[in-house]
Amino acid sequence: MPSGKILVAQGGGPTAVINQSLVGVVLEARRFRNVERVYGAKYGVRGIVNENLVDLTQETSHNLELVANTPASALGSTRDKPDLKYCEEIFQVLRAHEIEHFFYIGGNDSADTVRIVSLEAQKAGYPLRCIHIPKTIDNDLVGNDHTPGFPSAARFVAQAFAGANLDNASLPGIYVGVAMGRHAGFLTAASALGKKFPDDGPHLIYLPERSFVLEKFLADVKSAHERFGRCVIAVSEGIHDTAGTPIASSLAKNLEHDAHGNIQLSGTGALADLLCEEIKSKLNIKRVRGDTLGYLQRSFFGCVSDVDRREAREVGEKAVQFAMWGSQDGSVAIKRTGSYSVEYELQPLDAVAGKTRVMEDEFIAAGGTDITEAFRQYLLPLLGSGMPDAFRLRASPVKKMMHTPP
Amino acid sequence: MPSGKILVAQGGGPTAVINQSLVGVVLEARRFRNVERVYGAKYGVRGIVNENLVDLTQETSHNLELVANTPASALGSTRDKPDLKYCEEIFQVLRAHEIEHFFYIGGNDSADTVRIVSLEAQKAGYPLRCIHIPKTIDNDLVGNDHTPGFPSAARFVAQAFAGANLDNASLPGIYVGVAMGRHAGFLTAASALGKKFPDDGPHLIYLPERSFVLEKFLADVKSAHERFGRCVIAVSEGIHDTAGTPIASSLAKNLEHDAHGNIQLSGTGALADLLCEEIKSKLNIKRVRGDTLGYLQRSFFGCVSDVDRREAREVGEKAVQFAMWGSQDGSVAIKRTGSYSVEYELQPLDAVAGKTRVMEDEFIAAGGTDITEAFRQYLLPLLGSGMPDAFRLRASPVKKMMHTPP
Repeated sequence: MPSGKILVAQGGGPTAVINQSLVGVVLEARRFRNVERVYGAKYGVRGIVNENLVDLTQETSHNLELVANTPASALGSTRDKPDLKYCEEIFQVLRAHEIEHFFYIGGNDSADTVRIVSLEAQKAGYPLRCIHIPKTIDNDLVGNDHTPGFPSAARFVAQAFAGANLDNASLPGIYVGVAMGRHAGFLTAASALGKKFPDDGPHLIYLPERSFVLEKFLADVKSAHERFGRCVIAVSEGIHDTAGTPIASSLAKNLEHDAHGNIQLSGTGALADLLCEEIKSKLNIKRVRGDTLGYLQRSFFGCVSDVDRREAREVGEKAVQFAMWGSQDGSVAIKRTGSYSVEYELQPLDAVAGKTRVMEDEFIAAGGTDITEAFRQYLLPLLGSGMPDAFRLRASPVKKMMHTPP
Repeated sequence: MPSGKILVAQGGGPTAVINQSLVGVVLEARRFRNVERVYGAKYGVRGIVNENLVDLTQETSHNLELVANTPASALGSTRDKPDLKYCEEIFQVLRAHEIEHFFYIGGNDSADTVRIVSLEAQKAGYPLRCIHIPKTIDNDLVGNDHTPGFPSAARFVAQAFAGANLDNASLPGIYVGVAMGRHAGFLTAASALGKKFPDDGPHLIYLPERSFVLEKFLADVKSAHERFGRCVIAVSEGIHDTAGTPIASSLAKNLEHDAHGNIQLSGTGALADLLCEEIKSKLNIKRVRGDTLGYLQRSFFGCVSDVDRREAREVGEKAVQFAMWGSQDGSVAIKRTGSYSVEYELQPLDAVAGKTRVMEDEFIAAGGTDITEAFRQYLLPLLGSGMPDAFRLRASPVKKMMHTPP
């Protein structure tokens, strides 16, 4: 007989829709008569070991709906990646509070935490149901068609490049936009969905799935600039040389590593600035501008895919259903079943924990600097309704009175 | 008797609503029976001297409406700042095409071009009506309550900081966001409109209207970080030391100057990176992130104030009315008449040409790192309807079972 106590937490980088999943868990859990309390841990697993818990049972459903539409992690998040000892502490707190359902919304690191805690409970013979709920703007979880958070971030990137392309067409030059994605190029590739007309940018796309060679890059830019009289370039923050060394890291004086041993690639404009400098000096092109889309990709308030919003809610709801009606721990996964529809499955935790999906080869054009039609078809329905649409003047030229055409 | 030929052009940096003004001119001009042709110059005044003109009379009104809702300059723009000789060439082309109405949508540099062309026409005794139509995200035109383009860019900045604040609250640390505005801090100040709760960021705002002292900045950040456990900082790209030297320029190895003699401050992440580096090294705070909002501020496709959209259309319409029914050249200006309503006036070209408005003292808090309530009241109605609104959980803490409170 379960205690009727549930705990939910949010881990890793926030997204525009992660609170939908939180609220999905809370509201769905309330429908089960055996659920006595729904607790939330503040700042992810760190809030569990510190016993920094709040009682979400006391929230009004109306406020929960408003929180669901607010981006970033309402409970707070953490970058902690628990080791075995940390997971033991998590388990001790869960047991002390007689919590028998643990839901953790996060990426592949969070899935790994859930996996270890699940094993701890099994070892101790304690009846703890552990469910991982997928979330990441990087779209790098295996076993998922896509992950909640990614469609809204992709929409932001597509809208950003659609606008940057128009701006660049108004004042022609070179524009370099750096998108997030350490290993997976999905977000950078989303820039292509901002294109409408054949000569629209981004004209070149550089993904971490392909090695970056500076000389090739400069030749590509020169060629595109000659062809279009301008050039919009989308670059992943994770681009690396043939040896696997990040292009960004060869510049940064002080490499910052996070708790997971990763180099800090976000929160700095260094990569865009370096690439602009190379273009200016080597190609002798004057108007070269670089932007790093930065945290706006995951935090901008007012650019959400309605498909993403709905699915993020549903993975939270389904997590509770899997926990209550199922008999195994696992990770909720999104499977595409139609064009466009999805179903939710529970996959084993070790199928997703700590693993990284990258862009499939069929999504990357042969030349390595563009996406395929298959990727466009994959991403398009995820962006949701109401995507902005660019229109052009079609006015015909006026006959010259002073200059004679050459 | 006028020739019935009109020419319109767009100058300077594009905005989200500059095409509204263009379409306002074209559609309003078509209502006048004496207007035979409406020409557009491609790429601003450069298109005039190159006779790169298109006939907008042949556009459908339906397509024009769609172009009006597309950001950036549909005709193309230019950074050229014409001197006397350049203006003479402009005038020669206008006369060769028997154009008797010249509308130029742009900032204070564009107003200066209109002023010189107007004088040239007067000298030559040629009946040319010259009207400047205001546009700039910097909001730095004198004689205007505000300028079209600014409200949408301000809305983007407010939404960006509202999201960045939520993100920063989820994963506490320091966040530095750099906004555009070389001399005028309006856009940077707009970040404050993203605040809702008393402890929301931005906690500190640095404007070009006040001298920037690094030691003071570090002390401010330290103090805010101690108070809130985190700190969101809005910084203008144009901040400078007491001698007037831009903080950004003390870093950049190769200062790029544009045709107006201005140093390039946009299109680089250097300022944010420097400030982050200072905070990390001097305050020994670990999680420090910087974003440069960059071109997204003026080019993001999907963040427009409906008030801005309407007013940008109206300044175009009014420009044609002032030209047709009035008897003087001038610059259309927005005057606030109510809370919230505006009227449009025609002010003399030399009242606005080449002049720069900065934030009034009453808009800047005494400490120099915040805005006043007067500024909030000034900006709020301009942001338009449907601003996103952040909500928080109100859940109460759960009693600790393992840890005893200190």
